[in-house]
Amino acid sequence: MTQENYTMLCDFYELTMGNGYFLSDKKDTVTYFDIFFRDIPDGGGYAIAAGLDQVIDYIENLRFTPEDIACLRQKGCFDERFLTYLQHFSFTGDIWAVPEGTPIFPGEPILTVRAKAIEAQFIETFLLLTLNHQSLIATKTSRIVSAAQGRPVAEFGSRRAHGTAGAILGARAAYIAGCASSACTIAEERYGVPASGTMAHSWVQMFDSEFEAFDTYCSIYPHNATLLVDTYNVLNSGVPNAIKAFHKHNITDGGVRIDSGDLAYLSIQVRKMLDKAGLPNCKIVASNSLDEHIIRDLIAQGAKIDAFGVGERLITARSSPVFGGVYKLCAVEKEDGTIVPKIKISENVGKITNPHFKKVYRLFDKATGKAMADQICLHDEEIDETKPLTIFDPDYTWKQKTLTDFCAKVLLVPIFQGGVCVYDRPSVPEIRAYCQKQMDALWDEVKRLDNPHKYYVDLSEKLWRLKRELLNRH
Amino acid sequence: MTQENYTMLCDFYELTMGNGYFLSDKKDTVTYFDIFFRDIPDGGGYAIAAGLDQVIDYIENLRFTPEDIACLRQKGCFDERFLTYLQHFSFTGDIWAVPEGTPIFPGEPILTVRAKAIEAQFIETFLLLTLNHQSLIATKTSRIVSAAQGRPVAEFGSRRAHGTAGAILGARAAYIAGCASSACTIAEERYGVPASGTMAHSWVQMFDSEFEAFDTYCSIYPHNATLLVDTYNVLNSGVPNAIKAFHKHNITDGGVRIDSGDLAYLSIQVRKMLDKAGLPNCKIVASNSLDEHIIRDLIAQGAKIDAFGVGERLITARSSPVFGGVYKLCAVEKEDGTIVPKIKISENVGKITNPHFKKVYRLFDKATGKAMADQICLHDEEIDETKPLTIFDPDYTWKQKTLTDFCAKVLLVPIFQGGVCVYDRPSVPEIRAYCQKQMDALWDEVKRLDNPHKYYVDLSEKLWRLKRELLNRH
Repeated sequence: MTQENYTMLCDFYELTMGNGYFLSDKKDTVTYFDIFFRDIPDGGGYAIAAGLDQVIDYIENLRFTPEDIACLRQKGCFDERFLTYLQHFSFTGDIWAVPEGTPIFPGEPILTVRAKAIEAQFIETFLLLTLNHQSLIATKTSRIVSAAQGRPVAEFGSRRAHGTAGAILGARAAYIAGCASSACTIAEERYGVPASGTMAHSWVQMFDSEFEAFDTYCSIYPHNATLLVDTYNVLNSGVPNAIKAFHKHNITDGGVRIDSGDLAYLSIQVRKMLDKAGLPNCKIVASNSLDEHIIRDLIAQGAKIDAFGVGERLITARSSPVFGGVYKLCAVEKEDGTIVPKIKISENVGKITNPHFKKVYRLFDKATGKAMADQICLHDEEIDETKPLTIFDPDYTWKQKTLTDFCAKVLLVPIFQGGVCVYDRPSVPEIRAYCQKQMDALWDEVKRLDNPHKYYVDLSEKLWRLKRELLNRH
Repeated sequence: MTQENYTMLCDFYELTMGNGYFLSDKKDTVTYFDIFFRDIPDGGGYAIAAGLDQVIDYIENLRFTPEDIACLRQKGCFDERFLTYLQHFSFTGDIWAVPEGTPIFPGEPILTVRAKAIEAQFIETFLLLTLNHQSLIATKTSRIVSAAQGRPVAEFGSRRAHGTAGAILGARAAYIAGCASSACTIAEERYGVPASGTMAHSWVQMFDSEFEAFDTYCSIYPHNATLLVDTYNVLNSGVPNAIKAFHKHNITDGGVRIDSGDLAYLSIQVRKMLDKAGLPNCKIVASNSLDEHIIRDLIAQGAKIDAFGVGERLITARSSPVFGGVYKLCAVEKEDGTIVPKIKISENVGKITNPHFKKVYRLFDKATGKAMADQICLHDEEIDETKPLTIFDPDYTWKQKTLTDFCAKVLLVPIFQGGVCVYDRPSVPEIRAYCQKQMDALWDEVKRLDNPHKYYVDLSEKLWRLKRELLNRH
């Protein structure tokens, strides 16, 4: 597969700042940046991290072509020495990140960069773009899959995706978060996402009769015959013709897809017709602008639906289509290696950042295996699992809890060291299995679609004190 | 620039249907498909077509690689003869489409394909994906630019876009629809979209003081100094430091950007401070989750803002992130060349399609130059501009209007003939200029943000009669 060069996919200000650092004394200053997000889409209780593998590809392929340099030169604002520097530009720093498929929560770093100012600043746009997009789709998908209560969900939103990567990597993220398959063929080729699909209305229209269309399809695909039954009329035409075709071809494990009308009512009627025709194993697939809320309601109303096809509302995360990951400076290294923490003040208290080079622990209850809280610490803090740990709410500090019999897992793992990828990249099916396991470790209360329990993300006492000290200083 | 191969970016059912047509007698049947949409995003009065140039690239680059064929073979459902056919697959049909930048309305074809069934069906996913995405962003941008009433709007949403194409082609579509520039550097290199940007908060944080950050920036960029003034406090720190830096460097045409807080209040105060400091030509740029409604309100409240930066709400079309273009079979050719019209019935009246191979006229009033209505006709109908033309509402047929002194312009132009591109592809700046001209031909009533006048899209009498006849027959 051809890899496009996305080096020039950066906000122009990354380059004006880069040129500025180059010309001032900041060229070799080592900086620390965190990616974190502030709000969970759709008011949910958790998000799912995705997109790291594309970050790795990007970092490894960073390279300005002569055409890129020429394009920048004609802007007339860059120093020739900076352009020469860019010709040999690559990323030489360190990156830590949470593995893809990990549930993540507001305020905690999900990726940390340690690199020279120009390098760290330059990669901002692409890292945010990739992580924001795939985490958005993974999070939305997780809600939809959860609403389907074990029934398979097929992703088929490519035609409504925001561009090619929206479709392809959207299908990847959807699979990571639990979709069973995707209509997007190239997602199987590239990422091992099982591709699925049978027919559109046009197939039915191409034949002189609906029965002829179904008959032809069953003769070609006796083992994968999901017939679209709503081209003319589901109950009076589509299902009777499907039954006739299944009988003719001795197909007992086929399926019918309903793509319009009231899916609760129709599926119940269709189930009766299929059962009466001796086809209890024939599956009913439903589609048509579905999302987690409609699926939940259909199931609550007793709809007889075995599988769902979900398109535009998943692939665009329609109800909440922005994942607000940000990239913030949290520390700068002095020449002697001392790390100077930085904080970003804001009149909006929620926008004040957590300073310093940090690490994040996820604390699991040993008895239940469930995640109880995350604790953000300074980079060199170690949690001793053999001693009780008291955690506290960083805003309402009297809210405390003491944990015993827990294990503490470091969330961010090394991805790049000195510009070299040190991460053993898992396959997409492996990420999907990991995601499922991590989701199992969350309490159901956190996974509720509406008004979920807020998972605790606390600061260590050292980090909390440092933050307060820096705030007082400003 | 490397072009990725998107041949496998198709819904899997395009291939199962293709294999089915191949194995049945439909292999060489010539079909007609229309792309049209049903609802305008955000309840607006018009949409803007965009994405055609990427359709052309896609069609010209269609080619299955040996790896693609191997991937399909392992699915186990395709006939070897079909796979052999795919190895030599290309598009050999005809395509007509509205030029990019054209205002478009629900129900009318914006692209028509005439090709053998397999070819026409195969390209569905990519065509919809590309046109839906870029038309969505162009339409949203047009609303935002219109709200800004002539003040420049810069697009800077890359970091929140749905993937790389969402960012790059989103920037392209935004420029077509009137954005003045984009932060997305690669959009300048590829499409001539002016790239712009100066500094992030991290630039300010990297220096020991805000003034030092501004001073350094002004010394490097005396001709492009837009300083971000809200890192600490806009009125007490940011603007006083900016004024000090501008004075030191004798910059009179700089700018300040406000990215948080109340933009109406702050911009009025900042304007006073700049004027008092003898900097009446210093521009005020505002950003922070803006969209057409906030911009309209800011201007109504007397905000002193000279330019807007718009990010996530534009690049994701946040308030209405789905453009619902569909691809529907409208006719099939018999072997003798007779065209047999096809109609898709639905219990939802709005989903019934317009049958047959069609053309669309846009009718302009000669006196005002304004577009009065579109008329969808059969493909061989000609409108005689020298005679009065009576148009009528296809649902409420007593609503009629007789036009005189009008000119009729055919909307869809030939793009491919026999698989060869016959279209003289305009540059992106040319498309932008064309779009502006077409927008000028729409009445303001149609362009209103909320509750706009509904532009007339009527059927010719011949098409109306044919549609009724086919509906009666079913």
